[in-house]
Amino acid sequence: MRAVCVIGLGLIGGSVLRAATTAGRPAWGTTTSEADAAGARAEGFEVLDVEPALRRAAEEEALVVVATPLTAVRAVLRQVAEHAPGAWLTDVVSVKEPVDAEVRSLLPAGRYAGGHPMAGVSSSGWSAGSGELFTGAAWAVTIEEDTTLEAWREAARLALDCGAQVVPTSAASHDFAVARISHLPHVFAAVLAAVGADGGPLALSLAAGSFRDGTRVAGSEPELVRAMTEGNRIALLDAVDDALGRLGAARGSLASTGGLKSTVDAGYDARRTLDELAINERVRATVQLNGTALERLRELGERGSRVVALTETAAEVEIPV
Amino acid sequence: MRAVCVIGLGLIGGSVLRAATTAGRPAWGTTTSEADAAGARAEGFEVLDVEPALRRAAEEEALVVVATPLTAVRAVLRQVAEHAPGAWLTDVVSVKEPVDAEVRSLLPAGRYAGGHPMAGVSSSGWSAGSGELFTGAAWAVTIEEDTTLEAWREAARLALDCGAQVVPTSAASHDFAVARISHLPHVFAAVLAAVGADGGPLALSLAAGSFRDGTRVAGSEPELVRAMTEGNRIALLDAVDDALGRLGAARGSLASTGGLKSTVDAGYDARRTLDELAINERVRATVQLNGTALERLRELGERGSRVVALTETAAEVEIPV
Repeated sequence: MRAVCVIGLGLIGGSVLRAATTAGRPAWGTTTSEADAAGARAEGFEVLDVEPALRRAAEEEALVVVATPLTAVRAVLRQVAEHAPGAWLTDVVSVKEPVDAEVRSLLPAGRYAGGHPMAGVSSSGWSAGSGELFTGAAWAVTIEEDTTLEAWREAARLALDCGAQVVPTSAASHDFAVARISHLPHVFAAVLAAVGADGGPLALSLAAGSFRDGTRVAGSEPELVRAMTEGNRIALLDAVDDALGRLGAARGSLASTGGLKSTVDAGYDARRTLDELAINERVRATVQLNGTALERLRELGERGSRVVALTETAAEVEIPV
Repeated sequence: MRAVCVIGLGLIGGSVLRAATTAGRPAWGTTTSEADAAGARAEGFEVLDVEPALRRAAEEEALVVVATPLTAVRAVLRQVAEHAPGAWLTDVVSVKEPVDAEVRSLLPAGRYAGGHPMAGVSSSGWSAGSGELFTGAAWAVTIEEDTTLEAWREAARLALDCGAQVVPTSAASHDFAVARISHLPHVFAAVLAAVGADGGPLALSLAAGSFRDGTRVAGSEPELVRAMTEGNRIALLDAVDDALGRLGAARGSLASTGGLKSTVDAGYDARRTLDELAINERVRATVQLNGTALERLRELGERGSRVVALTETAAEVEIPV
């Protein structure tokens, strides 16, 4: 089994290190956080300085997993380029086009496929992680025109070994989608929390489930939220504009006719679609990993399909019907 | 113990009937829903037609609890005025000024204090309710200039008997506050769900915790959401305008400087304030139920205080410090 070198041992990186180890893979990590390093070592994990960690990755032909905030990615990739330029490479950063661009500028093509596990909690750091964080979660693994089957398979296998299901997608489609289902929710939570607090102590004293749920992720570490949302600026602007349009329409309707029917109905239908995704029937298909496999997988991902198993020669895919 | 007559046996009314019975109070209900009536009877509760239910309330000097959607309140109050005009009266409807206005136009002053338990789940109807729904929840009980101590005490005692804590407030302050912490969250959830679904199957396939939490209440029964939000139109418009202003500022900042610092920081601070409310120290105070008690209680409610116990002569209040 291919070894794994995790760079960054916060919530996500720390959970990858745990899950990869549980899956039986040789795995070690490196981090600039003393607290995360101490936490990992206390639980028996191997934590090295960044240079030895990467040199070992080069020697063992490991998969290097970049698990730092976006703002640290360029510096980390420079180190990878210096100490382990030929290693297999993936990342778990929440935006994919900026990481893809950095990789292209610093490292040889063909060894990298980007990743993004759709799992998280409001708390951060090693201590917030768990080897079960990714169980059943979606984990995007990106496919560009020049992505190699080998690099994609390395990244996808890590996701499956961590208990996740793989969503094949392009970096651009990923960034467009997560702007809507991850980054806008963080902006909405922040705005909602602030409007609620504007109501003073009485409002917060009366706050119950709808406000707690709607503002939960506003409690996430601000620097991580900023790195994530600001890093996906163009796609997020598009999502915010859609939201402003819909919220403005609700305002107009409420002010003129007093009604919110189209707003409420559209939201209800959308949420039902989400809930039904989890229970709807899916068909299984086998995609042979030949020359056009990645293109086919990306099309299937666009339709909401997920890769649930992978062999040397084929991917098992669950397709919504 | 004063008997309780609950009109409407959906999620909230059904939960009140159960909780009041558990507290040892004689209690019966009435509903126009055959499903809710059958559900309540199957669990051994007494369900009468509306006229006999109200006549019995008049005979037993019961507390009548209006637990219908806002749109049905006027018709119900007409029936109360006909069959039990002298009964004590409260309600559990999610907006208070419109109910207060209807009561004033149809029933003698001095027997009514409005109520609103801040508890709910996305599902509705008798079967979704529970006698523990209100445990530890905030339950607003309104105080206007002419509210009598007796009527307020009857409504507040029901809330305490149901396991809730009482937030004394005016109808206007309540409606202003819940627009921000209950009605706007429903509008936000609907808009967020729709923007997410606009992203297609790939976006919904990638949706995780932040989107699920942020859209949960979009799955609530649309008619109930509309009754609640549309019934609080003026206060909700104010909250939506605040939200549009903050979301527009986020958009502008993202487009110009690329940063979201002030949005993210304001949301983080607001959410921390909410979380700290639950764990911060509170001081206990006793308010004697004399001539100025209601005014004093309303002031304390405005500061986030809650009444946690009530005797014939005094209210025990927990005040945040």
